[in-house]
Amino acid sequence: MSELDPTAPEAAIAEAAAKYSNWGRWGEHDTLGTLNFIDAAKRVEAAALVRRGATFSLSQRFDANGPQKGWRRRTNPVHTMLDTGVDAALGNQGFPHGIGGADDVIAMPLQCSTQWDGLGHIFDHGKAWNGRAAQTVVTSEGDLITGIETAAAAIVSRGVLLDVGRAIGRDGELPDGFAITTEHLSATAQAHGVDVERGDIVCVRTGQLTRVRRDGWGDYAGGAAPGLSFTTAGWLHAAEIAAIATDTWGFEVRPNEFDGAFQPLHQVAIPNMGLFIGEMWDLDALAADCARHGRYDFQLVAAPLPITGAVGSPVNPIAVV
Amino acid sequence: MSELDPTAPEAAIAEAAAKYSNWGRWGEHDTLGTLNFIDAAKRVEAAALVRRGATFSLSQRFDANGPQKGWRRRTNPVHTMLDTGVDAALGNQGFPHGIGGADDVIAMPLQCSTQWDGLGHIFDHGKAWNGRAAQTVVTSEGDLITGIETAAAAIVSRGVLLDVGRAIGRDGELPDGFAITTEHLSATAQAHGVDVERGDIVCVRTGQLTRVRRDGWGDYAGGAAPGLSFTTAGWLHAAEIAAIATDTWGFEVRPNEFDGAFQPLHQVAIPNMGLFIGEMWDLDALAADCARHGRYDFQLVAAPLPITGAVGSPVNPIAVV
Amino acid sequence: MSELDPTAPEAAIAEAAAKYSNWGRWGEHDTLGTLNFIDAAKRVEAAALVRRGATFSLSQRFDANGPQKGWRRRTNPVHTMLDTGVDAALGNQGFPHGIGGADDVIAMPLQCSTQWDGLGHIFDHGKAWNGRAAQTVVTSEGDLITGIETAAAAIVSRGVLLDVGRAIGRDGELPDGFAITTEHLSATAQAHGVDVERGDIVCVRTGQLTRVRRDGWGDYAGGAAPGLSFTTAGWLHAAEIAAIATDTWGFEVRPNEFDGAFQPLHQVAIPNMGLFIGEMWDLDALAADCARHGRYDFQLVAAPLPITGAVGSPVNPIAVV
Amino acid sequence: MSELDPTAPEAAIAEAAAKYSNWGRWGEHDTLGTLNFIDAAKRVEAAALVRRGATFSLSQRFDANGPQKGWRRRTNPVHTMLDTGVDAALGNQGFPHGIGGADDVIAMPLQCSTQWDGLGHIFDHGKAWNGRAAQTVVTSEGDLITGIETAAAAIVSRGVLLDVGRAIGRDGELPDGFAITTEHLSATAQAHGVDVERGDIVCVRTGQLTRVRRDGWGDYAGGAAPGLSFTTAGWLHAAEIAAIATDTWGFEVRPNEFDGAFQPLHQVAIPNMGLFIGEMWDLDALAADCARHGRYDFQLVAAPLPITGAVGSPVNPIAVV
Repeated sequence: MSELDPTAPEAAIAEAAAKYSNWGRWGEHDTLGTLNFIDAAKRVEAAALVRRGATFSLSQRFDANGPQKGWRRRTNPVHTMLDTGVDAALGNQGFPHGIGGADDVIAMPLQCSTQWDGLGHIFDHGKAWNGRAAQTVVTSEGDLITGIETAAAAIVSRGVLLDVGRAIGRDGELPDGFAITTEHLSATAQAHGVDVERGDIVCVRTGQLTRVRRDGWGDYAGGAAPGLSFTTAGWLHAAEIAAIATDTWGFEVRPNEFDGAFQPLHQVAIPNMGLFIGEMWDLDALAADCARHGRYDFQLVAAPLPITGAVGSPVNPIAVV
Repeated sequence: MSELDPTAPEAAIAEAAAKYSNWGRWGEHDTLGTLNFIDAAKRVEAAALVRRGATFSLSQRFDANGPQKGWRRRTNPVHTMLDTGVDAALGNQGFPHGIGGADDVIAMPLQCSTQWDGLGHIFDHGKAWNGRAAQTVVTSEGDLITGIETAAAAIVSRGVLLDVGRAIGRDGELPDGFAITTEHLSATAQAHGVDVERGDIVCVRTGQLTRVRRDGWGDYAGGAAPGLSFTTAGWLHAAEIAAIATDTWGFEVRPNEFDGAFQPLHQVAIPNMGLFIGEMWDLDALAADCARHGRYDFQLVAAPLPITGAVGSPVNPIAVV
Repeated sequence: MSELDPTAPEAAIAEAAAKYSNWGRWGEHDTLGTLNFIDAAKRVEAAALVRRGATFSLSQRFDANGPQKGWRRRTNPVHTMLDTGVDAALGNQGFPHGIGGADDVIAMPLQCSTQWDGLGHIFDHGKAWNGRAAQTVVTSEGDLITGIETAAAAIVSRGVLLDVGRAIGRDGELPDGFAITTEHLSATAQAHGVDVERGDIVCVRTGQLTRVRRDGWGDYAGGAAPGLSFTTAGWLHAAEIAAIATDTWGFEVRPNEFDGAFQPLHQVAIPNMGLFIGEMWDLDALAADCARHGRYDFQLVAAPLPITGAVGSPVNPIAVV
Repeated sequence: MSELDPTAPEAAIAEAAAKYSNWGRWGEHDTLGTLNFIDAAKRVEAAALVRRGATFSLSQRFDANGPQKGWRRRTNPVHTMLDTGVDAALGNQGFPHGIGGADDVIAMPLQCSTQWDGLGHIFDHGKAWNGRAAQTVVTSEGDLITGIETAAAAIVSRGVLLDVGRAIGRDGELPDGFAITTEHLSATAQAHGVDVERGDIVCVRTGQLTRVRRDGWGDYAGGAAPGLSFTTAGWLHAAEIAAIATDTWGFEVRPNEFDGAFQPLHQVAIPNMGLFIGEMWDLDALAADCARHGRYDFQLVAAPLPITGAVGSPVNPIAVV
């Protein structure tokens, strides 16, 4: 699919959902989706990519200065202290022999900053991953089947950076509304001299995060953004990647390519393909290092917090090069 | 120090604090403490330990069924849904073309479950890590200097499991109140055929978590527990390890060895030594694997969530073997 | 209904639901249920009961030392500080000319302590108050129709204390499991010399709160307790009271009177009768005053926090005598 | 004080603090400040003001659509569901005999919307109400002395509405930055034909809330606003009122009248005078009623939630006329 009729999202989504479905591919009880493409050999191969011993955190900071503006009750994290060094210095904490302590609490939406979308995060016409009925999977008690805790140990693989911002954009950045196509991805990989392989975690840098860091958050959370075109659905499926992550709020291009649509590529990728999607990753330091050394693959460990029943998780992905 | 006068914590703590201090060792601006023992070569060496490509999550689950009972306002995590599959199935979410979504929120103390103690977590007579005044480091706004976000990319190294429960205990478990000494650590390492080296992250399994899983949480959060003896302070310092983690609430033996004391080894280790301490790690599956294969070292990636100003962080540590 | 077959909850509930239903009584758009029994004249009459100008707070304290143990994720409130006097004294808050401040945050279930059950709190076979389909009333976005904010100005009326603990119990307390019948309520009112009238808010003291204050919370939150018998449903309906409140967790007797049942009187009273129910009220100081002065009616102002879409609300009810 | 040198806040504040201090007036252990002006006779008098039996909630709604923008981590409330009618309708809640339930949770700053400032909310040069050292009053554990729970039963009195917006403003609204002086207050009272008396709770309507409801929140939370002039400090003291509340974020005029100042009238009123201040009250419906009936006094019950150690509280103030 490389042409797209902007007036007909329903048909296009239905066609892509059918064509690129992985339902049943890993059995009826599967909870891992495309993470199944990562096998032991792949992880050994990924570890072998560590040559210099440098590490990069691909996470933004979690604090009140984030991009959220309250859309669907998504706020920025609120971090508060239960005890502080100020109290400790005053000696009023009630501890013996001069010990003092500080403790803290956080309240946050799991999608507030750098995160993984779990497989229970998106549904297609009431169906969740692997064809399950959405209402049997995610209730008010959480995701009873594909909760993010089921992926606790799974997300370790070869990472590949596709710095589309640098390869295709101007001054390292794609403009908002830029739809990244399969051709852009291929051209970028070719420019980098890197191949995308089965089980990879593909990190797509658009440069939007660089821009909002410089210019202010603006509508980073949900507004116009560069991102993947709906037409990449076939590539995402055929490439047999384990996961994909971007430096944007929503992975796919915004505004979405269909009239009046909302995240149609999510609708194909998560419930139908079983693809893990990472969002709001900070790829800038890693991208600079890749460019400097001319190597775009690395070991990537991106372990979600195993919050029981969560449909996503904040994450601090670590690239080791 | 291998003898200990239970009536004189102040003197013993002061002596150990002075003897095992690392203040200034990495410059006056340091925020990483013993994580400085991990260098690039160490990380390359750690990656080379990956032979089979198996991974282990060393994290407990984060949910309402945890061990916390409210001590100092430490509760179990509260995870609630903003949107669910039940709502999506009903079609009342207001999204177009059949897409539905689920979203969620968490509220939790950062010390509620598997976590890292940051360097701002404990003070000694009003002093924080590196000799700073506690009240200038951790205010109601959080840790302004050694916030856990400063360690975002740092905690990747060789992990070594010391399964003291299996080597010294009965049926794989040490009893509550059992003080693990340097001799126990050495005997365990010898039994495993593994050496503890500079920059390692040492994971000490006591078996207490195995026990409470079987018998109920009881007083896991703060009550009697096996753990490191205060007398290991010298070993912790001399070994130049990067971090240490246990499967218990509080890392050191409980009740503490001094009369009326509270976590005296923390008081030496965190503010004076700059040691990173992990607590409530789940080492059971990894330990079984180590025993089966007779290998007790592995690559360990234990990246904290970079919560700005946090004095600790929940973590999902990943061991790759 | 004064006999009850403990083996047949379904039939008894269905019968009571049909007999005591107020559906449609106040029109199809009603959101106030029995609060409609309070009219302007009633409020004038209530104000006229103020003779001495004394006030009583009928609220327990909201803090971490409450009775909750995590049932269905109901925890005690977590109150944390954003700024403190300790920080202010240190002068590190960044404010000019010597002003300092303290600020705070709370996280709590709305049913954690003294509260009103809103009309969206309980359903009967998928039906909410006034016959509405539960799924159209309370979604993940909250109660879209009968949210507690609709009652923001409504709960001001004559309060009547029925101190059943004092009138019927021993040493002012009913034992756990004691089912308060219509006869007990009448005998108590007669002993007090007070009549229950249309539009009243009836406060029933069992003495259980007195007991757990003395003996420890135990299973106050959900365990055995004195409370109203299912057989009082007819009286609750016929009396045309505006609301009823108790000093217990759950208003009705626990264990419930039917085998394997769960809060059957709620099921009749809230969705079918439209009755407002208050729980965990602290009636002890008011009860002592009523006994001392021999007067058991008073002005009662029990305004919920108008949290949009909430199915209940913490409340600090004020009795003015 | 009716003249004000905008360049000299320190001197003016110090002078007013000394002149209008109530320290010691109600004994050294006092926690109620100006609420002491309310006595039993006053409450009887207040109840006698109830003539028509109409009630007004003076509270804004508590939800995510509030005015907060994150200043000092003040966010809007986040209300989430633990159980819903959608789940209940599906029958998957695990309850017997057709009962279903909905439950909810809230996380919010105590100053997020309609609220009382407690006496521990503001300090003057490290001093809290009654001359106490700020650091002994409000620690990370909360307000240990003047926590809002100490006022749980106290805030019931005669309320007086001064609708300055209507009396002095244009179309019922004062412009942002308008400083309300003693003369404006007196002229308004005279226009209303009402006297402010000892123990009253004075509600000052500026009309700003009316404006932001029409035009959008803008900078309602902390930006320019009409409000009381610093020069009213003497009047606030001499009038011996119990409390004062406004329909604005911060009670006093914004920008503040001194160069580079921040809430100087708070600094005099709360720690020195012991005055209770209400903010973000919704006085519009009450004001319309007062204007219609030509009566500006009423019974006011404004009971804070007794959150232990809180330095303020959300409140739903009820006016009964």
